[in-house]
Formats: sequence, structure tokens, C-alpha cells
Amino acid sequence: MSTLILLRHGRSDWNEKNLFTGWVDVDLIDAGREEAVRGGELLAESGHLPDVVHTSLLRRAITTANIALDVCDRHWIPVRRDWRLNERHYGALQGLDKAATRELYGEEQFMTWRRGFDTPPPPIELDSEYAQTDDPRYDGIEIPRTECLKDVIERLMPYWEGPIREDLDAGRTVLVTAHGNSLRALVKHLDQISDDDIADLNIPTGMPLVYDLGEDYLPTRPAEYLDPAVAEAEAAKVASQGR
Amino acid sequence: MSTLILLRHGRSDWNEKNLFTGWVDVDLIDAGREEAVRGGELLAESGHLPDVVHTSLLRRAITTANIALDVCDRHWIPVRRDWRLNERHYGALQGLDKAATRELYGEEQFMTWRRGFDTPPPPIELDSEYAQTDDPRYDGIEIPRTECLKDVIERLMPYWEGPIREDLDAGRTVLVTAHGNSLRALVKHLDQISDDDIADLNIPTGMPLVYDLGEDYLPTRPAEYLDPAVAEAEAAKVASQGR
Repeated sequence: MSTLILLRHGRSDWNEKNLFTGWVDVDLIDAGREEAVRGGELLAESGHLPDVVHTSLLRRAITTANIALDVCDRHWIPVRRDWRLNERHYGALQGLDKAATRELYGEEQFMTWRRGFDTPPPPIELDSEYAQTDDPRYDGIEIPRTECLKDVIERLMPYWEGPIREDLDAGRTVLVTAHGNSLRALVKHLDQISDDDIADLNIPTGMPLVYDLGEDYLPTRPAEYLDPAVAEAEAAKVASQGR
Repeated sequence: MSTLILLRHGRSDWNEKNLFTGWVDVDLIDAGREEAVRGGELLAESGHLPDVVHTSLLRRAITTANIALDVCDRHWIPVRRDWRLNERHYGALQGLDKAATRELYGEEQFMTWRRGFDTPPPPIELDSEYAQTDDPRYDGIEIPRTECLKDVIERLMPYWEGPIREDLDAGRTVLVTAHGNSLRALVKHLDQISDDDIADLNIPTGMPLVYDLGEDYLPTRPAEYLDPAVAEAEAAKVASQGR
């Protein structure tokens, strides 16, 4: 039996501006840093102290992990990073306003791109200012030009089955600090949620979600947010974005 | 040929209070965070962008690395941490005021402990509030109860010859973010400084020191601080501590 803690990054500059972010490397806002502090306090208060942290290659997840681990006195644990934990690539939508996109393309297309399981938005142009074409952090990686949630699951699972399971196998309490959609992908697998039902799942920012896993790496009981009341209110806000 | 960058953490709470710190896990002060920001700016401006960072297990070095890497847009690089990069263990002096220690024991004993090559201070009591007796980050490690610089060199060299060289061999630009004495130990080796002369070497806080290394892992030319004028002034301040 081992413990897995999922933590979505605190609110970012583009969460605030209601833009599609994806792989664009925006920073946390002050309120997001405060969420990370609170996340760290919840880890400390509940005694769920990570032995190792896995993050995406994006600043908002990395900074959230740095802050939360500092607060719970676990700044010194091993760190592993991988692009497979990155947010879903939003293709040509990256940098666009969510409300304007909804108006332009209509509610149905908007929701299909946003929440549909297997419909990626149009691919990003390689010379777009919001593409990561020459970003050295992706050297040697064939990076996507757009992704649907199904694509995210496909590129995430090798990391789940590899490096994260290695740490779980070693008996470590594993913290994964990542993004709305890379964490939805993982939760879909863990809680065996159907392709249809995953559309309704929202993960709040900055709130640790704790899984106890059995030998099959599946939950032995329902996962718990460390502050359930706040988690519910925050998830409702996520659901209403773009409205 | 490869590049090694050494960075001493920014000023800490106990640097400011003039206390012997050693392995006590104190935080940076705001001025120390600013030094880390400036360190990151110097890396960015000079184009010395690390491909991997090695830190000690102490907060002041970890936070300095986090800040500097964020500023130079290298927050996403791999991170490796090891106790062998920790500050020298100051034994029973940890937590004591430097000026008071000097007055109590006299100038000669003070300087022998502080700068002597092979005279460790008295060992710390295991139940001291400044010992790391039950600290989980050192689980499985036989931690020292006091160290002289010679001891630091002995425990540091396996890490230099192992993990750091691995990264240099892979052609990576390596950033080592550590402490006054663990970095003095490394500089002593790199610049082949004698046991006597190392007493006069002071490393300023928050200032990147860049080495170009040849195939023998020794410098091909003198190392350079990225802001030499500031480095000189800061090193002079370090030398005068406890006066």
C-alpha cells in the first residue's frame, strides 16, 4: 500500500485572464502562491509528507511544488520532472480568450474542444508566439501541436507506469504537482471514470488530493481532498470558466 | 570541455545575526532572495544557462537555486540533491554568536576553528536543539557531529567524482548551489590551493563563479565571478565576520 498525492498548480496569470494556457509557460499570480502555501500547510497538518515530487516542465507547477514543499518542510526531497505531466496542449486555442472563443465558435464547438474526450482543437502554427517550437526544455521530444484528453492519457500513462510507479514501489509517498488536464487524465485512470463522465470532473487549484493505493496501483478507498469544503467550491468555479 | 558554475546561497537569517549555522536549516532573508534574483539575472545576461542543478539538502541553498533558475528561465532543468553538498558541520558552535564565541575562546582558538584546515570544533550534543539527530532527510546517513574543512573535502569528493562528473561527462552545464565551506572545499580542489592558503579564500554570497573545465576536470583558465567588482567587495565582508 502506498500514498499518492495529486496537486494542481495554484491560479496563474492566464487562469485569471481567462485565456487558454496549455503549454504556454505563464507564472502564478499572488493568489496562486497563497494557494500553494495553503496546500503545503494542509500536507503538514494532515501528516501527508511527500518523499519525492514529480512535476511537469511548466513554471506554474514547479513553483507550486517549490512553495508547498517549503511550507511543509519537505523542500529537500528528490525532484523529478517530465513533459508528460504537462498540461494538455490546447493547439491553436493557446493564448485565446475563453469567453471570446466560445462566442466565436459557439457553445457546442467550445464545449467539444474544452471537455470532449477525443476532439483536439486545430493544431498550433509552428511560428505562433504561443508555440514551443525552439524551447530547449523539449529538445529531443516530438512535442504535440494540439491534444485532446485522450492524447494526454496516452502520453501520460508511460510516465505513470514508469517513474511514478518506481517511487510507489519503493514505498515512497509520491506528490505529483501538475495541471487540470494531466491530473484529470490520471484521475480518470485511477477512479476508472468513463470517457463521457470525465467531462464533468473538475480539479480545484492548490488543493492536495490523497489516494491510498493497493498493490494493483488502484485506490483502496475513495480519494480525499485535504480540505473538502473548499475543494467543492473551487471545482464549481473551474466548471463555470468561459461563461 | 564543460562548464561548472558555483553559487553560494544568498544571505540567511543567521548570516545576518552572525551565528554559526552549519547544518541548521535556516531561511534566506529578503536581501538573500534579492541576491538569488541577481544571480539568476547574471546567468541569463552572460548566457551561462545551467542544464542541471545540484544542491545541498538545506533550505537556503535550495531556495537560492529555485529563485535563480526561475529568473534565468531554467526552472525546468533536472534537480539533484545530496547531503554531501551541505555546509560544514560546525559541531557545538552551531547556534552560537560568532563575536561572543571569539570573545569567550580568544582570537586564536576562534580562527583555528573557523579557518584552520584540520581542527574541528567540539562535537555537538545529540540532544542539542541545533543537532539534526532525528531529521528524516538524513535517514540512513551517518551524519557528522562536527567537521573541519578537511572533513568536508573528504565527504564532498565522492559526490564531485560521481554525480557531478556524470553530468559534466554528458556535456551539461552544471550549476552547484551550496555553501561557503562546501564550495571552498571544491574550489580548493579545482584551483589546487594549499591547506594553508585556503584560509584566505572567501566566497561571496549569491554570485555565480564560472569554471571552464578540461578533460581532466580541472580549470583551463582562471574561474570568473560574473560580477567581479561586487564579488570582491562581498568576499571582504565575509572575511571580517565575527569582528
